[in-house]
Amino acid sequence: MTLHWTSAATDGAARAGTLHTAHGEVPTPVFMPVGTAGTVKAMTADAVRSTGAQMVLGNTYHLMLRPGAERVARLGGLHRMMDWSGPILTDSGGFQVMSLSGLRKMDEQGVTFQSHIDGSKHRLTPERSIEIQNLLDADVTMCLDECTPFPATEEQAAVSMRLSMRWAARCRDAFVARDGYGLFGIVQGSVYPDLRAESVAALTGIGFEGYAIGGLAVGEGQEMMFAVLDTTLPHLPTDRARYLMGVGTPSDLVGAVRRGIDMFDCVMPTRSGRTGRAYTRHGILNMRNARHADDGGPIDPDCACPACARHSRAYIQHLFKAGEMLGPMLLTWHNIRYYQDLMAELRGAILAGTFDETAARIEAGWQKDPAA
Amino acid sequence: MTLHWTSAATDGAARAGTLHTAHGEVPTPVFMPVGTAGTVKAMTADAVRSTGAQMVLGNTYHLMLRPGAERVARLGGLHRMMDWSGPILTDSGGFQVMSLSGLRKMDEQGVTFQSHIDGSKHRLTPERSIEIQNLLDADVTMCLDECTPFPATEEQAAVSMRLSMRWAARCRDAFVARDGYGLFGIVQGSVYPDLRAESVAALTGIGFEGYAIGGLAVGEGQEMMFAVLDTTLPHLPTDRARYLMGVGTPSDLVGAVRRGIDMFDCVMPTRSGRTGRAYTRHGILNMRNARHADDGGPIDPDCACPACARHSRAYIQHLFKAGEMLGPMLLTWHNIRYYQDLMAELRGAILAGTFDETAARIEAGWQKDPAA
Repeated sequence: MTLHWTSAATDGAARAGTLHTAHGEVPTPVFMPVGTAGTVKAMTADAVRSTGAQMVLGNTYHLMLRPGAERVARLGGLHRMMDWSGPILTDSGGFQVMSLSGLRKMDEQGVTFQSHIDGSKHRLTPERSIEIQNLLDADVTMCLDECTPFPATEEQAAVSMRLSMRWAARCRDAFVARDGYGLFGIVQGSVYPDLRAESVAALTGIGFEGYAIGGLAVGEGQEMMFAVLDTTLPHLPTDRARYLMGVGTPSDLVGAVRRGIDMFDCVMPTRSGRTGRAYTRHGILNMRNARHADDGGPIDPDCACPACARHSRAYIQHLFKAGEMLGPMLLTWHNIRYYQDLMAELRGAILAGTFDETAARIEAGWQKDPAA
Repeated sequence: MTLHWTSAATDGAARAGTLHTAHGEVPTPVFMPVGTAGTVKAMTADAVRSTGAQMVLGNTYHLMLRPGAERVARLGGLHRMMDWSGPILTDSGGFQVMSLSGLRKMDEQGVTFQSHIDGSKHRLTPERSIEIQNLLDADVTMCLDECTPFPATEEQAAVSMRLSMRWAARCRDAFVARDGYGLFGIVQGSVYPDLRAESVAALTGIGFEGYAIGGLAVGEGQEMMFAVLDTTLPHLPTDRARYLMGVGTPSDLVGAVRRGIDMFDCVMPTRSGRTGRAYTRHGILNMRNARHADDGGPIDPDCACPACARHSRAYIQHLFKAGEMLGPMLLTWHNIRYYQDLMAELRGAILAGTFDETAARIEAGWQKDPAA
């Protein structure tokens, strides 16, 4: 059977379920830590597992350039290379081509670009993106799309979205169905409800194992992002997984789960972990702040990660001040653990039918210790 | 009872034994990973434990400057701060004052120096060094000595050594005896046998829980280092631990254990791990070398560390090329594990009375895969 999602419970629009993949079952809502170049930065695979994470994301753009998709395949695929036996979702490469690479040239067939690493020239088409993700052995393959810039006029957004829809059909044709593997389409259309609806219609007409919402978290703000979800999600089939790409803050996650999103990925907890920002049940802490220098208490007393269970805020602050690698290692670990705990708590609340109370309590907690 | 060492077996001059400390018993010969600023760089305390390491080293110079000895004491001591429940040895700070700090002024009473971090002025005396190490809660405290530069004339070495001996007496007076804690004297005298013998006589006249050989691994070469050990060690009491400071390569360790050294520390396995050098049973590998790019085999097939048990040489090479933190993390882990395995193997051989055969087999193995 192909990769699929089954519902376990709903609470309002919020959904709890299970994603069934070739590499195991994943309870949803799920947050996928980002393993850009075949590693969740600053964490061993064991550490990632210990947070409760069951699925991670890999970046096609980075992996195609280094170490190369064919090489990953020769090494037994991405799971084996990075010691991750659970499911993996790979993006299509389109977003990073736009955000990272040098000279680009788009045409109907695909995009030609220069590597940000060595300036070498590469070509990505819908067919090649699917082939690369197959070589990486991704459980969830994403369609190649054009990332519509923000802001965009309705005319620009329509042209861009329709190209992505034509590419989605080519991706569907190129994808080889296998048990437990699946292909997700990506809804585009910027902030325009009619375009989003048109995009959903195009994608559901083709048919995918799951549907992603793309083109958000690009500067439109949380309010507009939620508004797009409010108008878009009702058009999607209820029996397929819904994935909000590149999102977000803990507050974004709570609001998007409330609206019916099942899957998330974001570099925020890992990137913040490397720069000293801690996400906690009590708000955001800047661990470089001198106020922590003599604080013998943990980052978050309710967290069971090694940074909180075994170390003081003072020690974490010391590690960052001294430029010790263990600072980013421990704080990334903490942040990923916090994101996993948050998703588990939201899932439990949906199953218990207490989503609103739980979300309100979580959100109230964040006010206690605002960013320092 | 004070910290002490007991013998389990000898094989030629090589010794197997146990160091009894306030934080547990340590089989010797032992290699102590270096936790300079309260962290073995790029490793969690759990990872360090998993290598078999039972004792680590902390640097007084780094810790007194940042986060500060009094602060470490307020946080419950170095063990608690860094989550290391086993024994800790701290150096005296003298070596780093010479190698790292800015303007220095030595006098009979101590040394005044500038912090390499912020240029602030500090003073280290034998009494203050002992006080700092007490604040850090070191199981083994080291006497403050002057690191005799290499090369030094016999006259220079004598003047320097005799100052260190006067300081050793002051350290002994300043040290407060507690159950399971101990103070080690440091033999100086450069490469001059008579000075080394004079230094041993001075120290044994004072009496210490263990004796370190200082002033080696400073550029004199392995042959001369071994020659100094050959002439110095016979003067030392057989019932006290012997610690060769700042040494060394796997080859150095085998040769020094053969001559009767019990304890070692060195930044080599950790520093090399961060720069891509792997120590293995088959020699040294440069993991950045392109020849590993498609090698699906482990760094060392006989090693049980996560880098070897779960990952390929190709993946490690990829991580270093991509600048991913996981490269240094995994390779440091491997190198420390290799050093621990090496020491355990040497200890087993001493207990079995097969040191020479074992050492010969180990040394032959290193020829298979010389540095690339």
